[in-house]
Amino acid sequence: MNPLLYEQIIATAIREDLGFGDITSESLVNPLQQGTAKITAKQEGIVAGIEVAKNVFKLVDPSLNFQASITDGDKVKPGTTLATISGGTRSILSGERVALNFLQRLSGIATGARRAANTVKDFNCRIVDTRKTTPGLRMLEKYAVRVGGGYNHRFGLFDAVLIKDNHIAAAGGITAAVESARQKVGHMVKIEVEVEDLVQAREALAVQADIIMFDNMDTTQMAAGVKLVAGRALTEASGNITLASLAQVAATGVNLISLGWLTHSAPALDLSLKLF
Amino acid sequence: MNPLLYEQIIATAIREDLGFGDITSESLVNPLQQGTAKITAKQEGIVAGIEVAKNVFKLVDPSLNFQASITDGDKVKPGTTLATISGGTRSILSGERVALNFLQRLSGIATGARRAANTVKDFNCRIVDTRKTTPGLRMLEKYAVRVGGGYNHRFGLFDAVLIKDNHIAAAGGITAAVESARQKVGHMVKIEVEVEDLVQAREALAVQADIIMFDNMDTTQMAAGVKLVAGRALTEASGNITLASLAQVAATGVNLISLGWLTHSAPALDLSLKLF
Amino acid sequence: MNPLLYEQIIATAIREDLGFGDITSESLVNPLQQGTAKITAKQEGIVAGIEVAKNVFKLVDPSLNFQASITDGDKVKPGTTLATISGGTRSILSGERVALNFLQRLSGIATGARRAANTVKDFNCRIVDTRKTTPGLRMLEKYAVRVGGGYNHRFGLFDAVLIKDNHIAAAGGITAAVESARQKVGHMVKIEVEVEDLVQAREALAVQADIIMFDNMDTTQMAAGVKLVAGRALTEASGNITLASLAQVAATGVNLISLGWLTHSAPALDLSLKLF
Amino acid sequence: MNPLLYEQIIATAIREDLGFGDITSESLVNPLQQGTAKITAKQEGIVAGIEVAKNVFKLVDPSLNFQASITDGDKVKPGTTLATISGGTRSILSGERVALNFLQRLSGIATGARRAANTVKDFNCRIVDTRKTTPGLRMLEKYAVRVGGGYNHRFGLFDAVLIKDNHIAAAGGITAAVESARQKVGHMVKIEVEVEDLVQAREALAVQADIIMFDNMDTTQMAAGVKLVAGRALTEASGNITLASLAQVAATGVNLISLGWLTHSAPALDLSLKLF
Amino acid sequence: MNPLLYEQIIATAIREDLGFGDITSESLVNPLQQGTAKITAKQEGIVAGIEVAKNVFKLVDPSLNFQASITDGDKVKPGTTLATISGGTRSILSGERVALNFLQRLSGIATGARRAANTVKDFNCRIVDTRKTTPGLRMLEKYAVRVGGGYNHRFGLFDAVLIKDNHIAAAGGITAAVESARQKVGHMVKIEVEVEDLVQAREALAVQADIIMFDNMDTTQMAAGVKLVAGRALTEASGNITLASLAQVAATGVNLISLGWLTHSAPALDLSLKLF
Amino acid sequence: MNPLLYEQIIATAIREDLGFGDITSESLVNPLQQGTAKITAKQEGIVAGIEVAKNVFKLVDPSLNFQASITDGDKVKPGTTLATISGGTRSILSGERVALNFLQRLSGIATGARRAANTVKDFNCRIVDTRKTTPGLRMLEKYAVRVGGGYNHRFGLFDAVLIKDNHIAAAGGITAAVESARQKVGHMVKIEVEVEDLVQAREALAVQADIIMFDNMDTTQMAAGVKLVAGRALTEASGNITLASLAQVAATGVNLISLGWLTHSAPALDLSLKLF
Repeated sequence: MNPLLYEQIIATAIREDLGFGDITSESLVNPLQQGTAKITAKQEGIVAGIEVAKNVFKLVDPSLNFQASITDGDKVKPGTTLATISGGTRSILSGERVALNFLQRLSGIATGARRAANTVKDFNCRIVDTRKTTPGLRMLEKYAVRVGGGYNHRFGLFDAVLIKDNHIAAAGGITAAVESARQKVGHMVKIEVEVEDLVQAREALAVQADIIMFDNMDTTQMAAGVKLVAGRALTEASGNITLASLAQVAATGVNLISLGWLTHSAPALDLSLKLF
Repeated sequence: MNPLLYEQIIATAIREDLGFGDITSESLVNPLQQGTAKITAKQEGIVAGIEVAKNVFKLVDPSLNFQASITDGDKVKPGTTLATISGGTRSILSGERVALNFLQRLSGIATGARRAANTVKDFNCRIVDTRKTTPGLRMLEKYAVRVGGGYNHRFGLFDAVLIKDNHIAAAGGITAAVESARQKVGHMVKIEVEVEDLVQAREALAVQADIIMFDNMDTTQMAAGVKLVAGRALTEASGNITLASLAQVAATGVNLISLGWLTHSAPALDLSLKLF
Repeated sequence: MNPLLYEQIIATAIREDLGFGDITSESLVNPLQQGTAKITAKQEGIVAGIEVAKNVFKLVDPSLNFQASITDGDKVKPGTTLATISGGTRSILSGERVALNFLQRLSGIATGARRAANTVKDFNCRIVDTRKTTPGLRMLEKYAVRVGGGYNHRFGLFDAVLIKDNHIAAAGGITAAVESARQKVGHMVKIEVEVEDLVQAREALAVQADIIMFDNMDTTQMAAGVKLVAGRALTEASGNITLASLAQVAATGVNLISLGWLTHSAPALDLSLKLF
Repeated sequence: MNPLLYEQIIATAIREDLGFGDITSESLVNPLQQGTAKITAKQEGIVAGIEVAKNVFKLVDPSLNFQASITDGDKVKPGTTLATISGGTRSILSGERVALNFLQRLSGIATGARRAANTVKDFNCRIVDTRKTTPGLRMLEKYAVRVGGGYNHRFGLFDAVLIKDNHIAAAGGITAAVESARQKVGHMVKIEVEVEDLVQAREALAVQADIIMFDNMDTTQMAAGVKLVAGRALTEASGNITLASLAQVAATGVNLISLGWLTHSAPALDLSLKLF
Repeated sequence: MNPLLYEQIIATAIREDLGFGDITSESLVNPLQQGTAKITAKQEGIVAGIEVAKNVFKLVDPSLNFQASITDGDKVKPGTTLATISGGTRSILSGERVALNFLQRLSGIATGARRAANTVKDFNCRIVDTRKTTPGLRMLEKYAVRVGGGYNHRFGLFDAVLIKDNHIAAAGGITAAVESARQKVGHMVKIEVEVEDLVQAREALAVQADIIMFDNMDTTQMAAGVKLVAGRALTEASGNITLASLAQVAATGVNLISLGWLTHSAPALDLSLKLF
Repeated sequence: MNPLLYEQIIATAIREDLGFGDITSESLVNPLQQGTAKITAKQEGIVAGIEVAKNVFKLVDPSLNFQASITDGDKVKPGTTLATISGGTRSILSGERVALNFLQRLSGIATGARRAANTVKDFNCRIVDTRKTTPGLRMLEKYAVRVGGGYNHRFGLFDAVLIKDNHIAAAGGITAAVESARQKVGHMVKIEVEVEDLVQAREALAVQADIIMFDNMDTTQMAAGVKLVAGRALTEASGNITLASLAQVAATGVNLISLGWLTHSAPALDLSLKLF
């Protein structure tokens, strides 16, 4: 990912932590003192955001040297070194927390995405994310999903049409909704329709939706839906799907399974930074 | 909290989602259509961020009417209405996801904080947060901790001195570190020292640290530490403390227990918005 | 369009013009003087941006009253009143130029788009824009294209895949390029391939590109391309198409004609503001 | 021009195009692939903005190498190389459109300004721009006018006084207006008065306006105005002056001719970028 | 002054002070408590910035009511009420310091400017400011100078030409410098030349500088300079002029006296805010 | 201080001065001309901000070379060189004023702080600043106070509790106020109480305020207060303390003396930049 795209995000995060200055390091550590630190995993997982962490340190102090030992997507175990940072001790300590906060969160997401992707790896089925991301971090979190082996759903309200129950009601039915959308949006935009049963699925199919999302349907219904659609649209499963139920959902034959918890409830991957 | 302090955060989040516009709502929903929606809990928990959600909708469309049915800190159960929003249907749909993203995350944190606070409520002990917060959302997340019944540790590197192992090494010992800090920082700043054993605790006490943090010590050691300090400084327990071990830690008599997972691994509280 | 999406654009434009203040109005016009002004067309064309102009005046002075006499998409002739602004004379004069600069530019684009759309109105063919927009104004300019009756191509590099000659070379051919893209991008993303002849068109079709763009092909070739594709993908004509050649291109049967000059060379629509 | 002054403008433009990333290049082009591209003219014209284009590429990727073959103000013909860019192919492709959008627009303006300047080159007469510039790009567009051989009128509402018909009415006449302005503004500020006939011109002259603008007067009147003023103020012609009428206007002896179309209706200069 | 022009300045100042929140007021004052406060002068002086102070409170809390008892330019004495603010006590206390910081600084400048202006009021001589202003506050400080009765010199490097010793050396003399400037800058721009003796003054006059600045010349020389110039250019005295020497400098007949200390060394006017 | 923390402040200041460009240098000075300039003191004082000045020049032109001859905290006399800048003459001249504006203001503050600190150097007493700083420059001004030998009071409303008369009234007394604060704020936050007499001091002491501020009390009262407190809290003198009265106040035995004039009324230190 081009650092230009997230440099404002990391600058904001650094300013949030540094405020008027790191009064601990500035009052204790000699400004000339040089040091070396390692970022180490304390837990097994998939790393995402190592370049983000590097750019945090570079923004705190361009003279720091950051050597990554892994690349995004690598699996780490307790004790694995992720990166070595050397340079001014003050700067290393001032950048530590912000760098780790990004790295732990993004790695937590990648770890969950990898787990989900592995669970369905024997099916012709993609794990996809949602818009249930942390405010301000969507670009980075969706990147972490890709790193983990998942795929991105639309990025926001602007890059694809997703017609949900409320839209269907407001437009007066699926057919009206899809036709209205197709008439107005550009030719590069896909149209997905969320359906709750096979009747709706049939209507969405008739009006040639590009993707049909089975929302909160049980796996029997979903399997029937997949059969009904028969490849004439992509099919997506959504709603309350857990790691435990994932394989069963994938077995229905859906092309896509979207998981909100990939981003909205990802636990951080435990990492630490130590000077040595 | 004064909305001025977080209005840039929510504006950024809205722009992140809206991008060039909500092409679904704009192509399907009549601009004059009016509607009413409810935000409802699908899970039990503590709400935090209802004013943030309100301000998201207000920023998306100042003419929307947002009526909160609960206030921050209230417990909700599946089916509890949190708020009713009425006005332009397009605007409600455009603001939905961002408002929920804030509300779900902050309520998730408050819910965890409440659970932790309740666990130690029979001890003279405060649950406190850390700087392991989501980049860019620290102010809001620390607010959610307070809503849940926890307390705030320092906000950043600038408002208090926290001397950790790396600082102690760099400064040449606890005594040197504390004396150097006390000489340089202002009189409104407290000084906390992280110690790993009783020897270090004794040194920190001798040099009159305001707070002594027992880092990754077992509860037997911590109890001995509390006895040693004997009220001459505040004592804080830190490191790998779970909901399960919390009561046992509190029983050592420490004044404070800091929990990184309050913010870095909080699962979202499940909420939904429906037009009706 | 939600004003939130462009309020930073208009604030920047106002600050660019106002700088340290409108020294003419401030030194000549009594701060209490009230006035009424009209925005009038001096040329025939299609209006776009009347809400943008309104929001410029509102940002300059929230107490101004702006009454639009037309709505975006309306045709105006020399002498038609577009809007009446009343309130503090100083504020009206301070906002005049910025409001007109937006309105003239966007109306110029809408006027050109309407002309192009009318030219092909008897064909089943859409006029679409490009990314050759004014830096910083893309969202508004693409809106003006829609107002005029055109449609939007992708918004940027992020919302659709468009594989051009350079990409084909870099990826080692059309088939490799499309397969690589399809493997990596999300399911909501369409893939368009730019081809220069029928051989390439055939390859793009075989690999199931969603859209095939005939770049700088003559109309005979394009007609053959349309026949070849036979509705299995959308077809787009691109490159050096003028108002004069538009009907002939549309007659080839292409679904889409993209015109860079809609935005990169649009002359402003002549408007004036007069106090009366 | 100091790049600091426009770096925010180009950063905004890049973010507008890149959004969440260049999904085409990222999914097709190997991140290690190196390439070389040339920017070539497809039309005759005057180049402006080559440094701006360079800084766009540098911001997209600081490791790119950009070699300009021309300097601003040079004339190019179809086939002339303007610059060669080498480095990561992905980065070149990601920066292409934004760099060209700036370069084409600014060169279009410079080309028009050169044409106008050449038309009046045998007269003691300057071509000047107006405030009818693209919102957000005034600084760059006024630079392009200078590159083409034109001169800048005032930059905004803050750096000079220009008293128009509305101001005259509001202040109660030209004399009152000029005297009020002269009393209030600083000594570094010039005062120009827009007049519609010789009576007004005489009054403006009597009250010692620095510049007198003949607005929408015919050339006979203007010539009489020039004679009347007789060098005691600068004279400026304004209003509906085309390339065709320019020489005739210059022949009246006015010192300045202002042309809104230099900036508000400049067609882009056609350029292309090709990897080779 | 249009609040739009300084709203970012005050928002930055409020965020600087409020940070993560006003922990004193929030922990002590009931959020529903209403109060009324007065801003009172503790020193004699001229007020500037009352609207700025009002907008600070409005930004902290739009529901506050701010009633000014004076207008900018009024003289206040110890005990004079400047404004009354009523509404939420918390909000009043949170906005107090920032509002006063602006008001005290701007009033301090206006007070000094008034004193200087009064000192030369019997001469045909204007007091003017310089660019020696507080970084970020130039617009407001130059406004305060005007409020006090002074006038503004150029606003920055962009709105007028001021040729100093270094420029003269670089350009190869005054004549070359002025001719080069006149050839390049627009017709709305005035040209001032700084001279150190009568020889230079003569050269500046010959080349028709609009303003001639006598820099660090003694009053005898200045008087001779004024005589030499004889109204063919404006004359400005500059350099180490104190309140004590001001009348003597004005008596030389110069048109303008510029004083850096108006802004770079202005003491704050003492004001207080009290709830009652 | 990490330049990251103030780079936005200096960028804003540069843009404020440069606006659309330095038209004097650009029209007179050859872009290739190289030069060397010195910053020299014209007055005795303490320097603060030499790195800030360096970063101003670096931001104006990264190719400039800036060599400091002193470091912050050094005393300079008339004629002392502070720094030598070499590189493009245009760039040096364009950066001059902004760099000096920062350096003169910060050095003025450091000079005053040094003078105050020296005055009380024989007492066990610290000079501390206040929040009466220039809007937008607090971080830099508080840095300058430290450079001069003073200490920082709290940075803003967010990092410490300071209970003043208005808060005491609102909370219903000192005891209630302190208890309420202690119950709500985090354990890293100190609590200071402003008292007006010994009765209040006694109450503040009883409720264990960390610091007791004697506001506008005479030195006899303060001495009694110090005796009363007897080291059980820190004591601070505040209100109308001048350089003349400083020693007498310090002699009362207070630990801290806060001086608003350090920042709100600091005269600039006179410096100049000359090319040679």
